[in-house]
Amino acid sequence: MTPYAQRSTEELKALKDQLEKKYNEIKAQGLSFNMSRGKPSPAQLDISEGLLSAVSTTEDCFAADGTDCRNYGEPVGIYEARKLMGDMMGIPAENVIVYGNASLQIMFDTVARSFTHGVCGSTPWCKLDKVKFLCPVPGYDRHFAVTEFFGVEMINVPMTPEGPDMDMVEKLVSEDEAVKGIWCVPKYSNPQGITYSDETVRRFANLKPAAEDFRIFWDNAYVVHHLYDDESKQDQLLNIFEECEKAGNPDMVYEFASTSKISFAGAGIAAVGASKKNIDFIKKYLGFQTIGHDKLNQLRHVKFFKDFNGIKEQMKKHAALLRPNFETVENALERDLGGLEIGSWDMPRGGYFIHFESLNGCANEIVKMAKEAGLVMTEAGATYPYHKDPNDSSIRIAPSMSTPQELEKASEIFTLCVRIASINKLLAERA
Amino acid sequence: MTPYAQRSTEELKALKDQLEKKYNEIKAQGLSFNMSRGKPSPAQLDISEGLLSAVSTTEDCFAADGTDCRNYGEPVGIYEARKLMGDMMGIPAENVIVYGNASLQIMFDTVARSFTHGVCGSTPWCKLDKVKFLCPVPGYDRHFAVTEFFGVEMINVPMTPEGPDMDMVEKLVSEDEAVKGIWCVPKYSNPQGITYSDETVRRFANLKPAAEDFRIFWDNAYVVHHLYDDESKQDQLLNIFEECEKAGNPDMVYEFASTSKISFAGAGIAAVGASKKNIDFIKKYLGFQTIGHDKLNQLRHVKFFKDFNGIKEQMKKHAALLRPNFETVENALERDLGGLEIGSWDMPRGGYFIHFESLNGCANEIVKMAKEAGLVMTEAGATYPYHKDPNDSSIRIAPSMSTPQELEKASEIFTLCVRIASINKLLAERA
Repeated sequence: MTPYAQRSTEELKALKDQLEKKYNEIKAQGLSFNMSRGKPSPAQLDISEGLLSAVSTTEDCFAADGTDCRNYGEPVGIYEARKLMGDMMGIPAENVIVYGNASLQIMFDTVARSFTHGVCGSTPWCKLDKVKFLCPVPGYDRHFAVTEFFGVEMINVPMTPEGPDMDMVEKLVSEDEAVKGIWCVPKYSNPQGITYSDETVRRFANLKPAAEDFRIFWDNAYVVHHLYDDESKQDQLLNIFEECEKAGNPDMVYEFASTSKISFAGAGIAAVGASKKNIDFIKKYLGFQTIGHDKLNQLRHVKFFKDFNGIKEQMKKHAALLRPNFETVENALERDLGGLEIGSWDMPRGGYFIHFESLNGCANEIVKMAKEAGLVMTEAGATYPYHKDPNDSSIRIAPSMSTPQELEKASEIFTLCVRIASINKLLAERA
Repeated sequence: MTPYAQRSTEELKALKDQLEKKYNEIKAQGLSFNMSRGKPSPAQLDISEGLLSAVSTTEDCFAADGTDCRNYGEPVGIYEARKLMGDMMGIPAENVIVYGNASLQIMFDTVARSFTHGVCGSTPWCKLDKVKFLCPVPGYDRHFAVTEFFGVEMINVPMTPEGPDMDMVEKLVSEDEAVKGIWCVPKYSNPQGITYSDETVRRFANLKPAAEDFRIFWDNAYVVHHLYDDESKQDQLLNIFEECEKAGNPDMVYEFASTSKISFAGAGIAAVGASKKNIDFIKKYLGFQTIGHDKLNQLRHVKFFKDFNGIKEQMKKHAALLRPNFETVENALERDLGGLEIGSWDMPRGGYFIHFESLNGCANEIVKMAKEAGLVMTEAGATYPYHKDPNDSSIRIAPSMSTPQELEKASEIFTLCVRIASINKLLAERA
């Protein structure tokens, strides 16, 4: 295919007429598709049906140490749940606290706690004139929303195929005491599906922060969320917890994970892992905050998965359902846009998203056009702090919630919008 | 029985020798009892076994409006759970948000939110020089612990048989803009089992706070926790939500409740009820804080209880188990201490505690002696802010976790310690 930029204005205008005709035909059909939702499909949730009955009698309600999970207590969670989550994160059970169902809530809580009570003895952030966070972009909108909500100044750090631009991270972290944190999705990142390279992880572990209360918010949301069973097709992430220890920076990282996309998105369990010093500080706070999280649900997960191997087996079932969806979208992108040089996309080996990078200035237009034709996409700009994508080029595609048939049609609408918006841009530049 | 104070010094000394002999005999037996834990007994938890299997297949996982409770969404909770909790609290479902398993966590969260984000637009409390809370005493230690943790200055307000001293409450609330809240357990209060009178509730509803962001923290923890099925033996509490509306103060109260002592203490559901303005403000915060609480557990509760009547029936079963425990302790107190005028206690008609008021200066000594003889009581002073009981006279007795046989023996130890400590005090005064 000849790249659009190399085609004549007449050719582009004719093509535009043709594509717009098709677009209007589709629009008239009143279709309804959604590629905005990064959530598991009903079929994926069905995989965990056994979880519902994993604790179904009084006899089932006791932890290995005899703890009655129906009653109060154990604010850090039952040991076997801490071990299950710890094994998944590569962190000893003693360094893990299991919460309720949402890791986002633990992260929010961590920021809130730092604002009111500081970090392991530091000045509470609410008493500081300025708190800054580094935000690798594109990234996860809900991370950025949390820090925005607390009035944190967010600084964009560009993502590279190896992870965040570490030259920039090192400079900002070491020079500015107001930089207190960085949001990371280190494996199959949201939205690009990038896994941080070993060198990136080591450079993170060896940061020399100006602020003693600087922390890496390591949201390992997709820690076992491979799309392919073959290990050679799975990304490997270095263990930040161990690397930080080796580097003499054991306290610098909080790792978060949950079973939201392993068991039930709305009724899983979530955990934080960190150094003893951090865990002790969190425990103190927890002692005031709650009498304990839902231990029955922790026990359900332990009984259902048995151990980390059980989780890995479960993930193969998810992969079998997700793979065709990803491939459908990727094939459509290649078929309709390959060689046109009006956008690029990645082929992630895990996670929940495909990231599409349009020509600069086109993302909003594409998402708007898609919506008018019945296809809901994640709002353009959502992957940037303050919803401001400086290039207006980042579009997040979430293929999990639809069937391949739906995705086939939805992708057709999407690529049509990309082509029209791109031609409009090229024509405008030539005018 | 002749009151101790009217007995001769010789008589008291002889009695002391006799009681101490008995105390030492008991101590030598190496017994182990616990009357410190305000939690349901295993037998009480067994009542809810059906809850475990109330949602056990994929088909069970859907809310009435079709919401898939396994997936993300509905941060305010599913409608039927909001209605169930609302019916129990006497608040419309629309004004209720259902959270996870612990109402303490909602209260903590409410304080934390006020510190970082203010109250419906007010200055965040962390930006104020001083924040004060009124604390009816004796009261619930975990309430006081939360405000202490946030550096709030706590002011004791004495409890009366009608509730907190409202003259004092009205004066402090209307005169001091730094007073931002008051902790209340309005029904079967912890630890005294007092239910606020209608006049007290109306005076609360008609408060004229100096601070626009003053809120009543109405922890209706024992809203349906009667000890007697006969309605004439049940305390009735006026509906603060309605009274505040009538008084033109709809935004002044947050009401909290949970099923912790209805279903499972560690795996129930908890809720907050408030005016539309408050709920809208909380919703905004929630939108950043979480993707939603555990809706499957909400649905489990709805399916298990069906409706508010189901909760009431459940509470009769709890009462049948708790009543003998309360009566055992009360009978022992009357038998061993009646007429001696060395302490007073209440006969609550609900809740989880019996409150014992010793002679001034004796509570610590009694709890210490009991511990040495193998009976663990709640730490003396725990019912006061900063753990400082100015009279050293308040002792909380928690009879739920033991059998009547255990309580019989435990009460014997307790009353023995009360008698010895009281004689010691009387003798010291005469010396």
